[in-house]
Amino acid sequence: MAKYDLDTIRHSTAHLMAQAVDRIYKSHNPQFGIGPVIENGFYYDIDLDVKIADEDLEKIEKVMQEIIDEKLAIKRMVFSRDEAVEFWKKKNQPLKVEVVSGIPADQEISLYEQGEFVDLCRGPHVENTGHLPKFFKLLHTAGAYWKGDSNNKMLQRIYAVSFNTKKQLEDHMIFLEEAKKRDHRKLGKEQELFHFESVAPASPFFMPKGTTVYNELVAFMRRIYVKYGYDEVITPMLLDSDLWHTSGHYAHYKENMYFSQVDKREFALKPMNCPCHMLMFKHYKYSYRDLPMRYADFGRLHRYESAGAVAGLTRVRSFCQDDAHIFISLEGIQEEIIKLMEMFFICYDHFGFKQIKIGLSTRPESKAGDDATWDVAEAALQGALDKTGHPYHINAGDGAFYGPKIDIQIADAIGRWHQLGTIQLDFQLPDRFDLKYTNEEGKDVRPVVIHRALLGSLERFIGVYLEHIAGIFPFWLSPEQATIVPVSNEKHTEYCRTLAKELRDMGFRVKVDERNETMGYKTRQIQQSKVPFMIVIGDREMENKAANIRAYGEQATKSLTIVELKEYFTKLNLERVPEKLR
Amino acid sequence: MAKYDLDTIRHSTAHLMAQAVDRIYKSHNPQFGIGPVIENGFYYDIDLDVKIADEDLEKIEKVMQEIIDEKLAIKRMVFSRDEAVEFWKKKNQPLKVEVVSGIPADQEISLYEQGEFVDLCRGPHVENTGHLPKFFKLLHTAGAYWKGDSNNKMLQRIYAVSFNTKKQLEDHMIFLEEAKKRDHRKLGKEQELFHFESVAPASPFFMPKGTTVYNELVAFMRRIYVKYGYDEVITPMLLDSDLWHTSGHYAHYKENMYFSQVDKREFALKPMNCPCHMLMFKHYKYSYRDLPMRYADFGRLHRYESAGAVAGLTRVRSFCQDDAHIFISLEGIQEEIIKLMEMFFICYDHFGFKQIKIGLSTRPESKAGDDATWDVAEAALQGALDKTGHPYHINAGDGAFYGPKIDIQIADAIGRWHQLGTIQLDFQLPDRFDLKYTNEEGKDVRPVVIHRALLGSLERFIGVYLEHIAGIFPFWLSPEQATIVPVSNEKHTEYCRTLAKELRDMGFRVKVDERNETMGYKTRQIQQSKVPFMIVIGDREMENKAANIRAYGEQATKSLTIVELKEYFTKLNLERVPEKLR
Repeated sequence: MAKYDLDTIRHSTAHLMAQAVDRIYKSHNPQFGIGPVIENGFYYDIDLDVKIADEDLEKIEKVMQEIIDEKLAIKRMVFSRDEAVEFWKKKNQPLKVEVVSGIPADQEISLYEQGEFVDLCRGPHVENTGHLPKFFKLLHTAGAYWKGDSNNKMLQRIYAVSFNTKKQLEDHMIFLEEAKKRDHRKLGKEQELFHFESVAPASPFFMPKGTTVYNELVAFMRRIYVKYGYDEVITPMLLDSDLWHTSGHYAHYKENMYFSQVDKREFALKPMNCPCHMLMFKHYKYSYRDLPMRYADFGRLHRYESAGAVAGLTRVRSFCQDDAHIFISLEGIQEEIIKLMEMFFICYDHFGFKQIKIGLSTRPESKAGDDATWDVAEAALQGALDKTGHPYHINAGDGAFYGPKIDIQIADAIGRWHQLGTIQLDFQLPDRFDLKYTNEEGKDVRPVVIHRALLGSLERFIGVYLEHIAGIFPFWLSPEQATIVPVSNEKHTEYCRTLAKELRDMGFRVKVDERNETMGYKTRQIQQSKVPFMIVIGDREMENKAANIRAYGEQATKSLTIVELKEYFTKLNLERVPEKLR
Repeated sequence: MAKYDLDTIRHSTAHLMAQAVDRIYKSHNPQFGIGPVIENGFYYDIDLDVKIADEDLEKIEKVMQEIIDEKLAIKRMVFSRDEAVEFWKKKNQPLKVEVVSGIPADQEISLYEQGEFVDLCRGPHVENTGHLPKFFKLLHTAGAYWKGDSNNKMLQRIYAVSFNTKKQLEDHMIFLEEAKKRDHRKLGKEQELFHFESVAPASPFFMPKGTTVYNELVAFMRRIYVKYGYDEVITPMLLDSDLWHTSGHYAHYKENMYFSQVDKREFALKPMNCPCHMLMFKHYKYSYRDLPMRYADFGRLHRYESAGAVAGLTRVRSFCQDDAHIFISLEGIQEEIIKLMEMFFICYDHFGFKQIKIGLSTRPESKAGDDATWDVAEAALQGALDKTGHPYHINAGDGAFYGPKIDIQIADAIGRWHQLGTIQLDFQLPDRFDLKYTNEEGKDVRPVVIHRALLGSLERFIGVYLEHIAGIFPFWLSPEQATIVPVSNEKHTEYCRTLAKELRDMGFRVKVDERNETMGYKTRQIQQSKVPFMIVIGDREMENKAANIRAYGEQATKSLTIVELKEYFTKLNLERVPEKLR
């Protein structure tokens, strides 16, 4: 099989699946849209007047295996555009007609034939269905608008994976199983962290437990900000389009913004904080001694994403970033980037992200700012990255037109990569807002602006992190840190309440489980809810001013005096600040 | 003079002022709008083609005194509506023509004549200008749209006060001087707390220091919430009009809302959090054992206020409330109100508001909910208020149609009353959202909802509080808690920085003043900026591991060891929680 690369195999397996669907549903005349290769497999969009249920997928897989066994030769045919249109018209495949009609008239079009089935494809393909490995799996179906446009018809999409070896397929199925268990939408529901309502699509409602996590993350970033000299600000959300014209958002980002009318003028909800921070910098007069100025802002941002693009917390329309803008001299950039990278590494490490990928994107062809400025800035970024000693790759020409940037990706516990951090230099906004500071010689000069986010969107971070930790929060971040259970509700509840109050007064989040349920039931439930500690109080504990504690996921319990318990929790809570910054 | 009440005197003094303006600007033909009595005085809106500057006011006052000395008789004349229109047309007073034209044709209209001057007025008036006390003062001028409508012409408004005795006038002028000093807009600017930008009218930009105060207030409320069993939630801001139809806001509050389009549907920015909380309550299933549920939300709200109504932080368009909604059984109300009143009293006392006025508003004629429900609820509120032992007054019939409410007003340091807290019962929203919980008998029943805010809008509270404390924050709330000053920059700065880092690591907000300025200059500036403590470090302090500290507003300094200083600050910071709740 090694003669074909995996992409070719997946392409051909997509045709194989379409052929199987065509055979099974022949009498319904299935109409085929497109069937591209995606990560680990492929999908196919099909217009069919009966619903393909997940239970039907096995039947399709079986027919696919039969077609492999039939060892049908796969033949390439070349048509002119018009011939291809005619061909698909005859075949009664209007979606294919539409695709082909969109291709320039002078372009050759390839079709691939295997037995009774023909598909449109650029290729290449395997030469014979008998060459295809049987290590594929149809995963599930989903609705998908034709061409992703909600004005079009909804088609049925079948998702599938395919691999070269049985082992690869099995490993991937285990990975999918693990990913499913960790799905943040599922965990969010189970752990009562957040949910969605139809009146606010892609805008989460954070329940009390989710809000605790959210607020603790904000508090975490604020503690980091104190260490690194950031100043938090609060800025308005609804601003005159005048501002968005000045900032350039009106020209370049309008499609993603929400507009309203205020005093008969057009206003928009901010999709980013930067323009507000530019105004703030402009409002006062600063000298080189005040720089760098670092404005942090947890303002709520709104960006329109199409209904098809949104997903759980990872792609939402309403969110906060751990956003900051740094106003700095060109000469100050390198030192600041070194500080930023330290801050980023310390925090990612603290959240248990051990694998980090760094990319440096450099000047594109069309750009704001002169070459000399870009020279200094790129050298500063590269110099800073060199000093961190962490490997990085250069995405030459991939920077934004207004400045070079550093992207930081982290791998989660099951090996998926997510982009969290960005450090984006900006030579353009300071120009657009005509920002100035006074330098050592008393002259007015332009600052450079650094946009940077460490966690990125808090909503998205919570989604990624929840999957990373499989819903098992560290003590400091856990919505409920301990559940106190009286052995006898009658005899021990008062003592439990007193203990709970003492712990709460110390800032811990604890609850007393006073329900009339058995200890076994409560224990199971507390384990399921992933609370870090269960504290059991019986006669002996009351007598000895002690507590019997059991950590999440462990069978063993240990006995601590109340004094020791408090010390232990206090020590655990130190993790609210990464060790290197304490 | 006692034969006239103050309102009559002020009315007549307004005519007196208009007459004086008419005499002085005769050649410009001043056109008079309206001149109503307001708190402590009156104003008059005048259309005049020359600007009346604040310097001109004394001249007008002088002419007013002359007219008093002229002892002109004030004569009442009665016209029909049409006669009055004719009269004002002849006088070339189009604004008066407009006012009179708006009066029904069959209504008698009174005009008052004094010497050459006639004004339109319902009366009564004093009988002779000689009866008017000379204890008035014209304060300042301001632009005001005719009839408060920005489509109309801008007129000149003169504000004035007037009293019965010289002492009253003098006291009031002292009060005004004090109020001016405390104006939160002035303090906000001086102390770099917040400012406004033209692209976001009535939506404050909080600078770092203002943000610290803001965030500390939120943190304060959160600590209170832990004590009283509140759960914080985070809810979306932009929601489908479907929701606003359900909640009733669309029918009753639309004019104050900002609308936008999402996925081709109409959405609005939330003006209140309640509908989101209703949805959250509905999302889960609750029993009587879970009640009361208390959802707190610091979500940003947007309400349109006309450009004429907005003012500093006290009337804004974008704000947060320390908002919460309590879902409770009818039987649970009284106990909850007792808890609420305790919480309110403790917090107001903590902010130094010692005088409190409480009003209970009872059922209006047209109302939601049956009489039996209102009976229970009103009795519960009244019973709770009785138990607090604090006097209250009843505003009979003044409740909202959806439930009775308690309003709480506080007096600030110079005796002005401000409403902060509200406790509003609601029988309607639970109906509109069809909310239910399971009672002891296993039946589904409606909860009652209590809307309540303690500080009210955080923005407005900051405005009111800033004026109350004249910008002098208590230690725990101060944006900068101490400034450390090295006696010699060269010799002592390192030590100061180390001390600052230690204090910051303990959570204190301290700065080192490293500027090349004299100790005298720095001392004056630190006093002006109202930082609670200045810490001076010289040779002796470094030797003894000590600090020389001086409290704001005091001349005396005292020497503390660093250990004592930390203990002292730690003790002061305990005030982050009111003593009764520690």
